[in-house]
Amino acid sequence: MSDNTRVKEAIDKATKRLNDNYKSQGIFEKEIGENLPKKADIIDTLAEIQRVIFPGFFGKENSAYVKLDNFAGSAIAVIYERLFKEIRSTLLYRGDKKRGADFDQEVEELTLKFIDKLPDIQELILKDVEAELEGDPAASSKEEIIFSYPGIYAIFVYRVAHELYNLKIPYIPRIMTEYAHGKTGIDINPGANIGEYFFIDHGTGIVIGETTTIGKHVKIYQGVTLGALSTMKGQQLSGTKRHPTIEDNVVIYANATVLGGDTVIGKNSVIAGNTFITESVPENTRVSALMPELKIKSRK
Amino acid sequence: MSDNTRVKEAIDKATKRLNDNYKSQGIFEKEIGENLPKKADIIDTLAEIQRVIFPGFFGKENSAYVKLDNFAGSAIAVIYERLFKEIRSTLLYRGDKKRGADFDQEVEELTLKFIDKLPDIQELILKDVEAELEGDPAASSKEEIIFSYPGIYAIFVYRVAHELYNLKIPYIPRIMTEYAHGKTGIDINPGANIGEYFFIDHGTGIVIGETTTIGKHVKIYQGVTLGALSTMKGQQLSGTKRHPTIEDNVVIYANATVLGGDTVIGKNSVIAGNTFITESVPENTRVSALMPELKIKSRK
Amino acid sequence: MSDNTRVKEAIDKATKRLNDNYKSQGIFEKEIGENLPKKADIIDTLAEIQRVIFPGFFGKENSAYVKLDNFAGSAIAVIYERLFKEIRSTLLYRGDKKRGADFDQEVEELTLKFIDKLPDIQELILKDVEAELEGDPAASSKEEIIFSYPGIYAIFVYRVAHELYNLKIPYIPRIMTEYAHGKTGIDINPGANIGEYFFIDHGTGIVIGETTTIGKHVKIYQGVTLGALSTMKGQQLSGTKRHPTIEDNVVIYANATVLGGDTVIGKNSVIAGNTFITESVPENTRVSALMPELKIKSRK
Amino acid sequence: MSDNTRVKEAIDKATKRLNDNYKSQGIFEKEIGENLPKKADIIDTLAEIQRVIFPGFFGKENSAYVKLDNFAGSAIAVIYERLFKEIRSTLLYRGDKKRGADFDQEVEELTLKFIDKLPDIQELILKDVEAELEGDPAASSKEEIIFSYPGIYAIFVYRVAHELYNLKIPYIPRIMTEYAHGKTGIDINPGANIGEYFFIDHGTGIVIGETTTIGKHVKIYQGVTLGALSTMKGQQLSGTKRHPTIEDNVVIYANATVLGGDTVIGKNSVIAGNTFITESVPENTRVSALMPELKIKSRK
Amino acid sequence: MSDNTRVKEAIDKATKRLNDNYKSQGIFEKEIGENLPKKADIIDTLAEIQRVIFPGFFGKENSAYVKLDNFAGSAIAVIYERLFKEIRSTLLYRGDKKRGADFDQEVEELTLKFIDKLPDIQELILKDVEAELEGDPAASSKEEIIFSYPGIYAIFVYRVAHELYNLKIPYIPRIMTEYAHGKTGIDINPGANIGEYFFIDHGTGIVIGETTTIGKHVKIYQGVTLGALSTMKGQQLSGTKRHPTIEDNVVIYANATVLGGDTVIGKNSVIAGNTFITESVPENTRVSALMPELKIKSRK
Amino acid sequence: MSDNTRVKEAIDKATKRLNDNYKSQGIFEKEIGENLPKKADIIDTLAEIQRVIFPGFFGKENSAYVKLDNFAGSAIAVIYERLFKEIRSTLLYRGDKKRGADFDQEVEELTLKFIDKLPDIQELILKDVEAELEGDPAASSKEEIIFSYPGIYAIFVYRVAHELYNLKIPYIPRIMTEYAHGKTGIDINPGANIGEYFFIDHGTGIVIGETTTIGKHVKIYQGVTLGALSTMKGQQLSGTKRHPTIEDNVVIYANATVLGGDTVIGKNSVIAGNTFITESVPENTRVSALMPELKIKSRK
Repeated sequence: MSDNTRVKEAIDKATKRLNDNYKSQGIFEKEIGENLPKKADIIDTLAEIQRVIFPGFFGKENSAYVKLDNFAGSAIAVIYERLFKEIRSTLLYRGDKKRGADFDQEVEELTLKFIDKLPDIQELILKDVEAELEGDPAASSKEEIIFSYPGIYAIFVYRVAHELYNLKIPYIPRIMTEYAHGKTGIDINPGANIGEYFFIDHGTGIVIGETTTIGKHVKIYQGVTLGALSTMKGQQLSGTKRHPTIEDNVVIYANATVLGGDTVIGKNSVIAGNTFITESVPENTRVSALMPELKIKSRK
Repeated sequence: MSDNTRVKEAIDKATKRLNDNYKSQGIFEKEIGENLPKKADIIDTLAEIQRVIFPGFFGKENSAYVKLDNFAGSAIAVIYERLFKEIRSTLLYRGDKKRGADFDQEVEELTLKFIDKLPDIQELILKDVEAELEGDPAASSKEEIIFSYPGIYAIFVYRVAHELYNLKIPYIPRIMTEYAHGKTGIDINPGANIGEYFFIDHGTGIVIGETTTIGKHVKIYQGVTLGALSTMKGQQLSGTKRHPTIEDNVVIYANATVLGGDTVIGKNSVIAGNTFITESVPENTRVSALMPELKIKSRK
Repeated sequence: MSDNTRVKEAIDKATKRLNDNYKSQGIFEKEIGENLPKKADIIDTLAEIQRVIFPGFFGKENSAYVKLDNFAGSAIAVIYERLFKEIRSTLLYRGDKKRGADFDQEVEELTLKFIDKLPDIQELILKDVEAELEGDPAASSKEEIIFSYPGIYAIFVYRVAHELYNLKIPYIPRIMTEYAHGKTGIDINPGANIGEYFFIDHGTGIVIGETTTIGKHVKIYQGVTLGALSTMKGQQLSGTKRHPTIEDNVVIYANATVLGGDTVIGKNSVIAGNTFITESVPENTRVSALMPELKIKSRK
Repeated sequence: MSDNTRVKEAIDKATKRLNDNYKSQGIFEKEIGENLPKKADIIDTLAEIQRVIFPGFFGKENSAYVKLDNFAGSAIAVIYERLFKEIRSTLLYRGDKKRGADFDQEVEELTLKFIDKLPDIQELILKDVEAELEGDPAASSKEEIIFSYPGIYAIFVYRVAHELYNLKIPYIPRIMTEYAHGKTGIDINPGANIGEYFFIDHGTGIVIGETTTIGKHVKIYQGVTLGALSTMKGQQLSGTKRHPTIEDNVVIYANATVLGGDTVIGKNSVIAGNTFITESVPENTRVSALMPELKIKSRK
Repeated sequence: MSDNTRVKEAIDKATKRLNDNYKSQGIFEKEIGENLPKKADIIDTLAEIQRVIFPGFFGKENSAYVKLDNFAGSAIAVIYERLFKEIRSTLLYRGDKKRGADFDQEVEELTLKFIDKLPDIQELILKDVEAELEGDPAASSKEEIIFSYPGIYAIFVYRVAHELYNLKIPYIPRIMTEYAHGKTGIDINPGANIGEYFFIDHGTGIVIGETTTIGKHVKIYQGVTLGALSTMKGQQLSGTKRHPTIEDNVVIYANATVLGGDTVIGKNSVIAGNTFITESVPENTRVSALMPELKIKSRK
Repeated sequence: MSDNTRVKEAIDKATKRLNDNYKSQGIFEKEIGENLPKKADIIDTLAEIQRVIFPGFFGKENSAYVKLDNFAGSAIAVIYERLFKEIRSTLLYRGDKKRGADFDQEVEELTLKFIDKLPDIQELILKDVEAELEGDPAASSKEEIIFSYPGIYAIFVYRVAHELYNLKIPYIPRIMTEYAHGKTGIDINPGANIGEYFFIDHGTGIVIGETTTIGKHVKIYQGVTLGALSTMKGQQLSGTKRHPTIEDNVVIYANATVLGGDTVIGKNSVIAGNTFITESVPENTRVSALMPELKIKSRK
């Protein structure tokens, strides 16, 4: 660090070039004085929701001493206030809304609609926990599942984000599911429609695309892709049904790939692991692949 | 936010419905006044163990100045005290133990048994580091492996959790391995038996089931599943041997799938990537798949 | 906890055995009084870089009020100072450098070379964002991509780490990319060479090896491995070209595996998902596998 | 840092001498395996109590949306659980209690007695807030007082600690009041008896000794000492009434000193600032000092 | 913890009584859905202001590498945005403002007026630093004063809070000065008017009341009160001049007390320590007390 | 926030004026690329020292399980490394040292000298704890004193800072004692010389100046000033003996003021509270003031 001047000049040169880059990009100079909520705040809201959905599991209270009648109210008040602010900032940030009493009224509506869905989300996620317990021979109790299963965490976050997606809130749903994706390796787009008693095992590598529809009592294992058939057209496909439909009671084993918006896996069917499916499968079918013949040679 | 009354009523309505849900679920009203230890506390204990296993790497002390004779004692005392509390809470939470002097004695036994295993865990993990260095041409030193390899972290956590699993401590082993799973994408059930000099490369997507047995000097790459053949029977299979046996010196390349409790990969065998194995493979064998013929068409 | 003596003795016994293990390992007794920088510090530096690359997105400032001319300078000064210290410690820790004025001069050179690359890194990553927007029909805006896409985060970290790798800084590049690997499931070795407009979708399970070369406008989906053909020789292969070359405009769909240092995927080619490629593919080719015939049986 | 050996030897020498010091002190080798609760935990419990005493002021909930009927229950459950653990540890640490069901029962009694006092503490502190508003012309509202007045914080902590002191809990009351002392400069011993509508202004430097008795509607300003007359006998005085009695409606202005266990300030009396009182003062009296004549010289 | 029911009942009883208390108090049920900003946020804003006033001292940037031209802009943008939100919440919380475009405009005005004062605040505080260096023989440099002198911190916070007080922002100025009071023991009401080159030594116990006026080059030592003569009338005195006027170049030594709204200490006068002044003192005067004669007895 | 331009212009204007201020001050543009260590780091080092001085009290280890032989070594290694860096930065920051091997050697000397003093500091502070227990009838045990007495904390910090002051380390000693000043209201200059068995009660408002000398077994109460007689000459007095000498076994009660470099309080003397002493007091003397006669009037 012999020479401050030299360091200062180098920093100055980089600063100038970065400034030039900034100016060549519309996204770095905003017109409206509102920022997106920080990711950390959205994650906190998610934690508050988790606390109220599973009382006694994630907060500091011991459920042995809490009268449950007393529990949810003040937590929901916190969720309401935070979400109001986050939804408000997000809509302003996108730039198609104007501050004012009407807009605040609209944000209130949206937030209350979400609050109204909280008990439904809870009912669904408790059914998912049941499905997990029934389906996994390694699970010893619902408590263990709620505390430690990444599949349940990913589904919980999806179910929350999906309600916000349905309300057409921008950014927040995806920030939520990508947070869960980062923690679990399970990537469920908030736009997907997933029925009750959904079961995920292990989970790492699962991808469930935006226009996927999944029925009730479906089981999915690690590495399964429910994806689009071809994405060469990029943005032109936005809004079209690109991902498959999975009907009730279907099981899809590890690393299977099911692609295409017209692909329907009929109810009660079982898809074996490592299969590659691009066409519909009728109901009550067991699909496996003629596995490639193994070449077995002795070593040395 | 025009009207507080309206917001309060909406919150109240959601509160009531959540309360009804709470009451329909046994898991939310506990009889005994003990909570599970917080996840964060268990992770802290794990960090303390990591610090003592790899002195100078993860704590604040610089190993250049620490006399190693002095090092481990006070850290182990911290581990002992924390683990005592965590094991005690966990056993009480499960509900089949009663507070009292006998129970405290039992918890002390269990905790001391684990403490006694610490040097063995260390010996094993140091051998794993050696295997990693030898097996990965991209690895430049043991230091780099200890500092940054997710495979080593996942194996370290598994080796700790496995000793707690052997002592039949509930919840804690799984919370530990799922934490590592979240950080690395590598899902090793604490019940698996894994021999020394275990090598994992890249790691994301690896699944090693509860009843898997793995010998010495085994190498496993990303996306490998050592799983159960069929899990349609769910909880009925609990306790049975459902996952494969991998003998000494076996190598299993990326994305291979090995399934079934009766499946044995014999020693010195090599399993190619993207294979699907549901039957045993003899010793000294090289198994690859007749890869599906590639269709090659020119584009436009 | 009836008897302190007993606990103390057990702790003492474990301490002694751990000490023996410490002494059997060269890595725990260092000669030189310098530690690696803490991982947390390296991550902080990465966050500072991210803040300056995407002004208004990750720091506390609202870009609506920041004059961009003013922005980068002081952040780069922070990056310079931190990186200087981290590079200095790292080189000393490795043990082949000696403290002194010449060495400090050398560290300054290295750090300034990196600072000089910051605008280039930014230009590249902004092109990657464009590629992401164009290629993903589910993406609604550049903002959403910058805020929440794991692929962009992994590429950003790779591009930073790659410049440090080019400067032959030890440890730090790998600590950076393994941090991103942990958060995204995407494992890009800092040694890989990746061209502009790189697109990653979903991402979990992607592995890009150290000697991989990737051209411009390449698209890669989840679970793709660009790996080494055989790694049985371990450290002997260190430094050789072991991973494939992917030319401009190539698309590689989910879970495809491309292996080998001589394997070249020619420009404009498309590799279908779930393929296994160990030989070169000419330009302008569409490669898919004759998928194994599906066995379809009705379930009772 | 030329020579590790030298540094290591110096550290070793200091270590040995510190060890000798440790061994010469009974307090560093404990027989019983229980530690005091960490200060930070006690402070957290205090914050939880503050949250429930002043709903909407210190927690994250906005009282505009909280139905107060719902509020206190779950917070008290948290307070109960924490305090149970803290009281339990503290009594064991002191060494005159033995673990067991009877002891746990006793701890439960103590904790529940404190819980039972919470509403009384609240009633008292709300009266103190009223006194503060009435007495301070600079106060603009009760909200401002609750949010920012150090006097109210010190009295709040004293009122909580005093109830624990009455239950003969060791350590915790003093840790609490010394925490408030550190934050406010107001040192109220938890043993003092202080009536309702107590008013403190500015506060820094106030000392209220262990055996002080204070009536209702008393006002005290910064720098006032209510102390012991002579403390030369030290521990021999432990337990005797050493500090004054202040009756109802007394005002004591800044920096007055009132000393002695037999000193009684009769009701409705006013003590001027900077006075030194070691004898009783009758009711309805105004006491000021003949201030020392001022010497006034012009400065050349 | 033998009996959950008993604990639950006790908690329930306390809850009910607390609820009754809540309802008897207007302050706990708000009409408007806006909370005060959290204290922690206000403190953060203060830290941001400190960072921009003293570049290189409190932030993470090393001023050796920062081009000062670049420095302040983005920090002020952060201050603007935060303060806008805090002022907005505070005015709404007080209840005499209504949401809407006009109100937002008004908040913007207020915030910009404060921003405009930042350079003036800086000039003043830098003069205070000079006064501190000149006046304290124990001070070794301006750097030491800025880094560690509580007097400078208290004056800095006062100067910031005073500008907000002048803008009639409620709550925030007092929360700021009480924070500094807690950290330094120096209680300066934001309403006081204090001239340039203000010097405080040691500081603990200093009280400067709301309507105090202090000229230039004034020096004040620990324990000095500039207070009201009698405060028995409480709220009736609100708004009247109750505290003294201190003219230019006055020195007031430790523990002196100066009281009364009509009391003027004329310029260039020196007030000795431990004096009690309730009447005006002419210019160029040295005031000391005929100290009470000391009684000196030999101790047996 | 109607108009971004307006806000940007206001920020820009303030930025320019702040920049002008920066440039008018030498302290904001440094020549050498080294910053002072952050206050938080110095506080951390202090905490590490406290942990090793009082094993089992402030760290996470429970002294019931720690073999004290093992304890201090690794903590001292941490202290050594941190202090080395902090002393190094501090000396460079002051600007009269040059980087290089000789300088590093010098820093090592200084740091090792401090390490060597650690056991002496401990012996002294343990004697202070004894003095505290003996002298305060409200103290129930040494544990309570160590855990909660501000006087002991202030003396501990002073004793550490004093050793660094003796080694002529700049900035750090004062940052340490001002930190303790902020937490306790006790301001002990690190330059003071204080003998063993020093006792402080309550403490708020105590000031002990830089050139004070205090003998053994001295007791001091709240609000006592040991100060300079006149400080009108400011910096000219730097280095001269300005503060009093207090001999062995002296007691100084609350709010007494002792001033002057030639003032000596002879051994075994007792100074009453609220006295003002500017001349020497012989040995074995009891000094009190003829307190000003009290004016007692009945109210109304």
